[in-house]
Amino acid sequence: MDTLSRLEHVIAQRLCASPDESYVAQLHSRGLKVIARKLGEEATEAVVAALSGTDEELVGEAADVLFHLLVLLAEKQVPLSAVLAELDRREGTSGLAEKASRSS
Amino acid sequence: MDTLSRLEHVIAQRLCASPDESYVAQLHSRGLKVIARKLGEEATEAVVAALSGTDEELVGEAADVLFHLLVLLAEKQVPLSAVLAELDRREGTSGLAEKASRSS
Amino acid sequence: MDTLSRLEHVIAQRLCASPDESYVAQLHSRGLKVIARKLGEEATEAVVAALSGTDEELVGEAADVLFHLLVLLAEKQVPLSAVLAELDRREGTSGLAEKASRSS
Amino acid sequence: MDTLSRLEHVIAQRLCASPDESYVAQLHSRGLKVIARKLGEEATEAVVAALSGTDEELVGEAADVLFHLLVLLAEKQVPLSAVLAELDRREGTSGLAEKASRSS
Repeated sequence: MDTLSRLEHVIAQRLCASPDESYVAQLHSRGLKVIARKLGEEATEAVVAALSGTDEELVGEAADVLFHLLVLLAEKQVPLSAVLAELDRREGTSGLAEKASRSS
Repeated sequence: MDTLSRLEHVIAQRLCASPDESYVAQLHSRGLKVIARKLGEEATEAVVAALSGTDEELVGEAADVLFHLLVLLAEKQVPLSAVLAELDRREGTSGLAEKASRSS
Repeated sequence: MDTLSRLEHVIAQRLCASPDESYVAQLHSRGLKVIARKLGEEATEAVVAALSGTDEELVGEAADVLFHLLVLLAEKQVPLSAVLAELDRREGTSGLAEKASRSS
Repeated sequence: MDTLSRLEHVIAQRLCASPDESYVAQLHSRGLKVIARKLGEEATEAVVAALSGTDEELVGEAADVLFHLLVLLAEKQVPLSAVLAELDRREGTSGLAEKASRSS
């Protein structure tokens, strides 16, 4: 089982644990708004790391983005597999054709 | 080979293609600043979709976040495997201990 | 009348103009989600300009942040004066005391 | 003297105060990357407040955006007046013509 699928599984289990024991449960208890905000914040940190940080910082921030994206999907009960299927679907079309077909 | 690893491979190949033929090559030709900005923008769109959109919109925006994160990593020549290894490493520590150990 | 108050006034007038004639009316017709997204995107662009751009680029992006913040406030019918009053109120408290009193 | 100009003045004074006494000095001591990141984060919080919060929350978050934008400008030694002059300049052009003249 690959890292992201395993992590998705762990997050689903922790979502309803005690907030004293789990960061994921803490996020869940604070609600969707806080989780969504965290994703936006981590993405900003990744932007900063990419422009002005070390590769090691970028690795850490990219991991934060992936982690909080998975928590957001879990909170909304959207499976990661649906997102991966969407990426597979797009890969079948040419990148530029794909971009053109999306609303900006 | 899983979706993200395959996509990372495709992106690495397209990075230096002609900008006329590939969205990835277009991003590469516009430079790191534009790619970093795109990640921030897609994350904002995912935040909006999570709070006010349909599940289908969230799937699309989450796919955009993953895609542009992979382009950013490729542009910086940071392998996805380093990010996944970081997530694996953290999983070994308790979520809260992990969070406490990170600078906010 | 200062620049932001005048701009707030202009935006209020344009909000319900024809989308063919006004960028503000276009944003209004696309709805709150698009306007909120634009603020997030412009902030990301300001982050990028501050870290990797010229002063002139930062001026342009900071202007974009202010402009789209005003459009967002107008769309939500929140007067700029309420935001300025909040800044005045905080200024009366010590910066650190203020920060401590806010939920992070 | 209006609120933002007064606040710009206060921030300039505090920038080099002791980090123990001033939040602005604390931000300054942590550096440009942290300040830029804070702007991105506050903008995300404003997006969330606009979509899912009360008007009072939006007022608080909009104040945070303005405050951290002023700190960022101060850190980069870009005067607020340059940003307001840019907004005045744009107001002279039609909104749509203006938008068309900017690189997206």
